[in-house]
Amino acid sequence: MEEVKIYLSEAEMPRRWYNIVADMPNKPAPPRHPATGEPVPPEAFSAIFPMNIIEQEISAEREIAIPEEVLSFYRMYRPTPLIRAFRFEKALKTPAKIFYKYEGASPAGSHKLNSAIAQVYYNKQAGTKRITTETGAGQWGSALAMACNFFGLECVVYMVRVSYNQKPYRRIVMETFGAKVHASPSNNTKAGRDALAKDPNSNGSLGLAISEAVEDTVTSKDTKYSLGSVLNHVCLHQTVIGQEAKLQLAKAGLYPDVVVGCVGGGSNFSGLSFPFVRDKIYGKQVRAVACEPTSCPTLTRGLYKYDFGDSVGMTPLMLMYTLGHGFMPPGIHAGGLRYHGDAPLLSQLVNEKLLEAVAVDQLPVFQAAELFARSEGIIPAPESAHALAGAVVEADKARQEGKERVILIGLSGHGFLDLAAYDDYHQGKLKNFPLPQEEIDKALHELPPIPANK
Amino acid sequence: MEEVKIYLSEAEMPRRWYNIVADMPNKPAPPRHPATGEPVPPEAFSAIFPMNIIEQEISAEREIAIPEEVLSFYRMYRPTPLIRAFRFEKALKTPAKIFYKYEGASPAGSHKLNSAIAQVYYNKQAGTKRITTETGAGQWGSALAMACNFFGLECVVYMVRVSYNQKPYRRIVMETFGAKVHASPSNNTKAGRDALAKDPNSNGSLGLAISEAVEDTVTSKDTKYSLGSVLNHVCLHQTVIGQEAKLQLAKAGLYPDVVVGCVGGGSNFSGLSFPFVRDKIYGKQVRAVACEPTSCPTLTRGLYKYDFGDSVGMTPLMLMYTLGHGFMPPGIHAGGLRYHGDAPLLSQLVNEKLLEAVAVDQLPVFQAAELFARSEGIIPAPESAHALAGAVVEADKARQEGKERVILIGLSGHGFLDLAAYDDYHQGKLKNFPLPQEEIDKALHELPPIPANK
Repeated sequence: MEEVKIYLSEAEMPRRWYNIVADMPNKPAPPRHPATGEPVPPEAFSAIFPMNIIEQEISAEREIAIPEEVLSFYRMYRPTPLIRAFRFEKALKTPAKIFYKYEGASPAGSHKLNSAIAQVYYNKQAGTKRITTETGAGQWGSALAMACNFFGLECVVYMVRVSYNQKPYRRIVMETFGAKVHASPSNNTKAGRDALAKDPNSNGSLGLAISEAVEDTVTSKDTKYSLGSVLNHVCLHQTVIGQEAKLQLAKAGLYPDVVVGCVGGGSNFSGLSFPFVRDKIYGKQVRAVACEPTSCPTLTRGLYKYDFGDSVGMTPLMLMYTLGHGFMPPGIHAGGLRYHGDAPLLSQLVNEKLLEAVAVDQLPVFQAAELFARSEGIIPAPESAHALAGAVVEADKARQEGKERVILIGLSGHGFLDLAAYDDYHQGKLKNFPLPQEEIDKALHELPPIPANK
Repeated sequence: MEEVKIYLSEAEMPRRWYNIVADMPNKPAPPRHPATGEPVPPEAFSAIFPMNIIEQEISAEREIAIPEEVLSFYRMYRPTPLIRAFRFEKALKTPAKIFYKYEGASPAGSHKLNSAIAQVYYNKQAGTKRITTETGAGQWGSALAMACNFFGLECVVYMVRVSYNQKPYRRIVMETFGAKVHASPSNNTKAGRDALAKDPNSNGSLGLAISEAVEDTVTSKDTKYSLGSVLNHVCLHQTVIGQEAKLQLAKAGLYPDVVVGCVGGGSNFSGLSFPFVRDKIYGKQVRAVACEPTSCPTLTRGLYKYDFGDSVGMTPLMLMYTLGHGFMPPGIHAGGLRYHGDAPLLSQLVNEKLLEAVAVDQLPVFQAAELFARSEGIIPAPESAHALAGAVVEADKARQEGKERVILIGLSGHGFLDLAAYDDYHQGKLKNFPLPQEEIDKALHELPPIPANK
């Protein structure tokens, strides 16, 4: 009987991260200074990131060895299983073979831990004693709190106040791992105090939480800042996912026809797809499809331009698909996908037609999620469910064409802490958010007017 | 390098449940009628259970084949991993080798699914179309909802109203799998309506929810009732846990010196320990330690007597350790361990000194849980954390004696839906509940006065 789950032994775990920069047809575009438009030198980031991470951020080495100590933590939950979705296939009446790479069984409940462990390790090597970050829904904050606890570093999380109040469970997870969680705006920083002075009941925003975390970093001793997606080194750390999946499929004598994942900042899908995109660059037939929400359609309706990475305009400019840093997406439940831009590496590959992108509506996302839960028993995170909605389309295409395609889904996390979203879905409270073009045009109007953007 | 996780392939999954009745030194005591004290014939249960399950309940066969269809669902999440707790060992400064058998990665988040799948399968075979049950905290309800969904049966859950209101996440899980969840007391049954007539704001109780589920069963068409612990067939279904663990340890060339698990109704610990107790019966050196809360100390301070299985006195009498069916344990967070009795099979083995029992206080339980979370990255369910507290004692003993003992822990579930308990712990709101002897004596006073209890 065919096995449902394909496991790798710990000895088969990848020993190197894969850096797609080495194989990309064109070099990545450098970050640029907002005022001058000039490329920003790596050292400019040293106030907030340690140099060893900055070196990784700009590296063009194809393979980067994973330090032994990072591997020893990966071994707590990696290799993650690749699971054949027999019952989901049956429910979809598709001849396709559907596999999902499940990162939700990691202790932090998502793929985020892959980069959190690596980032905390490098920070510790560089002498950092304390790490700040911001978190919205809390997936990244949980992973970083856990990793800091493993390595004995302090972790300070600025959590958007509305999430802090509405999603106490994520806060409790972070606190259980010893992190200090501040509702943002807080009284810890000037940015926070200013916001509170204007509105003592401010709900906060991710942009403001970033400002607070960065201010805390540059004004505190032995403190660095950490980001859970978007940047090159974060995408790099996630490539353990795709490397494992490739090996697992190979054990079943298979190679995917299409690789499907959800995209917010892009690290999860980068990690899953890059090892396959590498093959594609060298001529292999494989499609990789990024699934984003129609309510935040950066890759499908945004522009490939230089823009700020944050929403308040503090960071250098990055070349990426963006809806404009002032874009405020509607309040969908997949909070992790509400980012106005996308990872520059992933954006460039989309621009060069090495990756495809589709946008999916909130209702079909939850339909796919519930069908998947009832078939496979796993309640997916709303973010991850976007990949399922994308896979449903591919499975349907395979059915119509009568093709026995191999579909590989990245299932990045579980939904145990997102159950309120499912409740809203059952009660008919969820809706789609079709975005009028005027709204997108208005946000795009704010793109920084540097020469490279002309 | 030694592997952290010991996996089995699906081909190595046990194909038979192990029935300890065949190896027990003495036959199990029969259930008795409350009025006459006479043994109750198996058919007497046929109004609420299908005959194929009743046959299993009274079987003395050593091994019972697991049906292929049940195996095919087990393969979605079984074999579960056995994990070496290297970091927990280090934190405890113990020379002991600590392994935990982790059932929390099952789709339902606990071991309960092992029996839910089996029970729904047998019900379907017997023509049942609809299954009722009661649930307190919701672990069992979630598992049964999932299993009913797999097999296409209707699932009706009576959930104690106070939990229904305070723990919406569990309800949402059940609804996601298509179950109908009623807050109990409900207007569906006479028992519920009577309770609401007395007190429209009644919080409900597990006893009342059982009454509602049973009344619904006997007054509805094609409907049976299902129980998540205590009974012989439930303990039987859980023996896949211990069988797998034994094989996994054998792969590492090991055999446990001590097996530790938490006990509420007893099915989880029975499933883990019985395959080892079998060896003990035939002379092998191994200890099995049941860990219960000091606030509900059935095995350590209760009496081995005939008592009702439910709290309102509707069931036949069972010979077990009990605090009296009227005993109301304090409101600890491990809701699944607040049962006045214990599985008769497990009780008999404790009585015959083949199993040991210890009681642990709530605060050390959460201390152990947090230490484990910070070491191993898994936030355990409060119930499962009782096993960890018991293991800490054993690890400490090994340290004091300088012995490299092998400790096997049953980690029955994760705590993602119990995070409020951790929040209370962090905020210093939790306390121990030392029970005065008067209180226990008072409850024991209500034991049914049948001849066998003299």
